Amino acid sequence: MKKNYMFTPGPTMVPHEVLLAEAAPMIHHRTTAFSEMLAETSRGLQKLFGTKEDVYIIMGSGTAAMEAAIVNVCSPGDKIICAPAGKFGERWVELGEGFGCEVVSLELEWGQSLTPGQARKALEEHPDARAIYTTHSETSTGALTDLGAIAAVTRRTDTLLAVDAISSIGVHPCKMDEWGVDVIACGSQKGCMIPPGLGYIAVSPRAWDVVEACSSPRYYLDLRLMRKRWAGGNQTPFTSAVTLVRAQKKALDMMQEEGLENVFARHERLAGAARAAAAALELGLVAENPANGLTAIHAPEGIDTGKLVAHMRDNYGVQMAGGQGHLKGKIIRIGHMGYVSEEELILAIAVLEKGLRDFGYEFDPSAGVDAAMKALG
Amino acid sequence: MKKNYMFTPGPTMVPHEVLLAEAAPMIHHRTTAFSEMLAETSRGLQKLFGTKEDVYIIMGSGTAAMEAAIVNVCSPGDKIICAPAGKFGERWVELGEGFGCEVVSLELEWGQSLTPGQARKALEEHPDARAIYTTHSETSTGALTDLGAIAAVTRRTDTLLAVDAISSIGVHPCKMDEWGVDVIACGSQKGCMIPPGLGYIAVSPRAWDVVEACSSPRYYLDLRLMRKRWAGGNQTPFTSAVTLVRAQKKALDMMQEEGLENVFARHERLAGAARAAAAALELGLVAENPANGLTAIHAPEGIDTGKLVAHMRDNYGVQMAGGQGHLKGKIIRIGHMGYVSEEELILAIAVLEKGLRDFGYEFDPSAGVDAAMKALG
Repeated sequence: MKKNYMFTPGPTMVPHEVLLAEAAPMIHHRTTAFSEMLAETSRGLQKLFGTKEDVYIIMGSGTAAMEAAIVNVCSPGDKIICAPAGKFGERWVELGEGFGCEVVSLELEWGQSLTPGQARKALEEHPDARAIYTTHSETSTGALTDLGAIAAVTRRTDTLLAVDAISSIGVHPCKMDEWGVDVIACGSQKGCMIPPGLGYIAVSPRAWDVVEACSSPRYYLDLRLMRKRWAGGNQTPFTSAVTLVRAQKKALDMMQEEGLENVFARHERLAGAARAAAAALELGLVAENPANGLTAIHAPEGIDTGKLVAHMRDNYGVQMAGGQGHLKGKIIRIGHMGYVSEEELILAIAVLEKGLRDFGYEFDPSAGVDAAMKALG
Repeated sequence: MKKNYMFTPGPTMVPHEVLLAEAAPMIHHRTTAFSEMLAETSRGLQKLFGTKEDVYIIMGSGTAAMEAAIVNVCSPGDKIICAPAGKFGERWVELGEGFGCEVVSLELEWGQSLTPGQARKALEEHPDARAIYTTHSETSTGALTDLGAIAAVTRRTDTLLAVDAISSIGVHPCKMDEWGVDVIACGSQKGCMIPPGLGYIAVSPRAWDVVEACSSPRYYLDLRLMRKRWAGGNQTPFTSAVTLVRAQKKALDMMQEEGLENVFARHERLAGAARAAAAALELGLVAENPANGLTAIHAPEGIDTGKLVAHMRDNYGVQMAGGQGHLKGKIIRIGHMGYVSEEELILAIAVLEKGLRDFGYEFDPSAGVDAAMKALG
């Protein structure tokens, strides 16, 4: 008998109640019943985003929401500033270049986070930039960006701030309106606790002016169409993913029941415990400023983490993730975002110890588990 | 007690087995287990498309698949020929114009279907057209296009044939390779018997040359990225909608079990019965050449079908659809695609009779039901 656990940085584990909500009988999307469900779901997402603006629900992945943040904001030839410090930061560069932007790419190492000083300097050099595109929590490195501090720089300029918050929403508090973030893109399969399939996007009032004036061709991801259909009775321009929306509503209800402050505090405790375990096992963190949704650690010298991850999955039923890009084979990413309990984190660390031992790494037995348990208190 | 039935032309009713497949425990998408599931699903879709080409599974609606058929084929300024004879035919025009094509729009009435003669004439006048974009089964009117006959015209030219087969796949036989259709776009929530959330697309070898040379910007819907990741081990460029793919695999298994020929024959019988009922009730068809997935009928003079549809849904639990565009309020669309049995079609006609009588329309009692039962034999 083997039970499976996903400590992956997305897709993440989904509550059974949410899976059953997905399996409830189909209803048609062009009905009042579905419009109400969609509106309630959007309201729940507004709380996670920290915004009074409508959150639009796209049938697509987080990348679709990111593309929407490019094609609705940037006209061909527009200059944008990117701060790639990981695979998903680089996605902004690819999207920008792909849609004809002049991309100014700041030089950051993987594991670093954009600082307010770097943002200020970039804006002084490029005051004509349409937007800064950055990443709240970089899933490939586990690094967190201080969004509030970056927004404090951008909101005094004409340059917008657009953020990939795919692996931070529902994990870290986000205060889009208070901070002054202009565009936030998100996906459903991480802190939002449902399977992949939905993308989310919200836009600040000043960014709407840019969206309206933007000349890039777009249709499926056209925010103007989304706003129009939403205003006309909480509908989407194209068919909605009925079962996934119902799943998201259920997951948001569960998060409200736990209390959003408690959800954020739980992630902080989980991350603290994972970091404590890594330190006890003498494994360094990849991120300078670590996020609370995942912990990325350097593997001991000589261990291929692709093989280690497969070994833990196949033998112990516990799935973590290896590295991406040039960190492939070199790091272990332990996801603890969304539907993860403190007890399950101990389980994850115990399996990590087993795996490391199987691969010949020597350390004080239970050192990681002990440290995690102490951190959890 | 009220039980609900959806005789809507998409989303359609979903088998409980399929909904439960959607509710099975999450697995990670970057695993061999998921790659195999994706590959089996694609193979099942190949049989429905009638192609040996890979069918790519997009996280998005049918419209996303249609947009992929535009942005991967047409470079800005390319001339395309559209044949809009309904709301979804008009979507090709909107997409073409939206992405900078020169759109030649043939003059058809809603309810008509593009004929081979019209296609031949259009190609003689516009031999430089990149592609003809048409609709296999037009969901807003219930009209069927003879794809094989259109393809017999286009395949002798350099102009490609791209088709919205969203409401025909799984309903009508489709022989993409044999007929010589170049691009087929589809969605999951109609004849494919699962909830909305996935789009499907397949591309002929000669169309691939065009895709490779196409200069339109694209990223999320880039077929080149899809082909690359598929070749590298049956994966998708971006996160896959794991639960919906599992649902689609289950639905395809059920269709295989019924036998595809039987599936197509069942739709033919359902459509024949619906048409016989309409004739018995003295209500004319909207389509000149009716499709087998839905039957669109003109309402009796003076009845607002928006109100009639709501009345049947709210009082008898049976949801049909009204008209779209200029046919709003004037027609009734009875969906009988996907998971619909012959017995349920009788139920639908019985409720239609009740609704029509409630709205004051006079006819021989049970005339529709009698005719449908006779047609079903």
